[in-house]
Amino acid sequence: MRPIITAFKASPDRGRGLARDMAVRWALEEVGLAYDVRLVTFDDLKSSEHRVLQPFGQIPTFEADGVAIFESGAIVLHVADQRPGLLPADAAARARAIAWMFAAVSTVEPPIVERSMASLLERDQPWFAARQALLDQRVQVRLADLSARLADGLWLDGAFSVGDLMMVAVLRRLNGSGVLEAHPAVEAYVARAEARPAFQRAFAAQRAVFEASEGAVS
Amino acid sequence: MRPIITAFKASPDRGRGLARDMAVRWALEEVGLAYDVRLVTFDDLKSSEHRVLQPFGQIPTFEADGVAIFESGAIVLHVADQRPGLLPADAAARARAIAWMFAAVSTVEPPIVERSMASLLERDQPWFAARQALLDQRVQVRLADLSARLADGLWLDGAFSVGDLMMVAVLRRLNGSGVLEAHPAVEAYVARAEARPAFQRAFAAQRAVFEASEGAVS
Repeated sequence: MRPIITAFKASPDRGRGLARDMAVRWALEEVGLAYDVRLVTFDDLKSSEHRVLQPFGQIPTFEADGVAIFESGAIVLHVADQRPGLLPADAAARARAIAWMFAAVSTVEPPIVERSMASLLERDQPWFAARQALLDQRVQVRLADLSARLADGLWLDGAFSVGDLMMVAVLRRLNGSGVLEAHPAVEAYVARAEARPAFQRAFAAQRAVFEASEGAVS
Repeated sequence: MRPIITAFKASPDRGRGLARDMAVRWALEEVGLAYDVRLVTFDDLKSSEHRVLQPFGQIPTFEADGVAIFESGAIVLHVADQRPGLLPADAAARARAIAWMFAAVSTVEPPIVERSMASLLERDQPWFAARQALLDQRVQVRLADLSARLADGLWLDGAFSVGDLMMVAVLRRLNGSGVLEAHPAVEAYVARAEARPAFQRAFAAQRAVFEASEGAVS
């Protein structure tokens, strides 16, 4: 059975690969697992059928061989466990790769998302400008730490792993913000990951969905 | 070799079990693994020795049998993999338990931490009161979804698992805020988890560290 994932029928990111199906598509491409996609509307997310799969009404979900899970991090880890390519065989290195996944979603991503959410939801609030400085600073602290760890390395810890995949998926939310530019090692790291053929295939696949949705409404 | 974890010598949470060593202590207690603690100061966190273990200068870290990792979620998952008790043997149930861990740290925790950070860092800002309403609303949405999923169940998915452990560790940040009270199923769920003997032992252990630090300065 090919895995089935869910993704937005008309993604609010306009095909920039920032919706959370992107990391899952990328992981599936890295390990060479073909998959199917069920596209959902915002109304679908509220349905009780979808809530059974995703209690918070989000995408993506993943179903294959009796496994039905949600949360992009959990799905990426599960996919990485199915085939070689994203998780080191050595137990200690495997544990470190997983540590970088959690660092991506629980240490690096929150200030980045908070910054994006403020740009999106609070732009008209009287406090917007004053808060942006605080938020930028919190993101910069994380990027400086990440830059120090990367130093001259290609990836965070030896070969490319699930840790790099999740970290880059998170850092890509800063593309176009001008924030990454202050950290050339991090910027180069993101570019290196985006150049991977598996990333390119995943990006093209989600982009095609968005373009089809634009065609449908125009 | 007994695992060695790091924790704050003088935790800013004043012994309320909100520092990130708490989830790790709790997991170790649940599976019955004795451990040692190396206490660190805020100055220690900046040291290059600590940064090798924790690139973002945080606690906790975990070292045992050649494994050296950071991020409480990753450590809890690693500990759960060492002994039975926190991860179901069935592969599909195991994947769901891990999905709830990621839901805890990347879907439920961010708005809760954002709310706490605002209370802590932005209380004197002119925008504080107006923003609290927005932040409370984001937290309430997550709690309502969680409440709907819990319904009459004791735990999120069958037996108590790493998913519940991380979720409760996250929800405890709301203790005393008055926010949980609107969701009796969630409030009862947190209380049920806190009543577990393993939680009690972990809580007492971190509390003792705080009390010793108070004694040292008074």
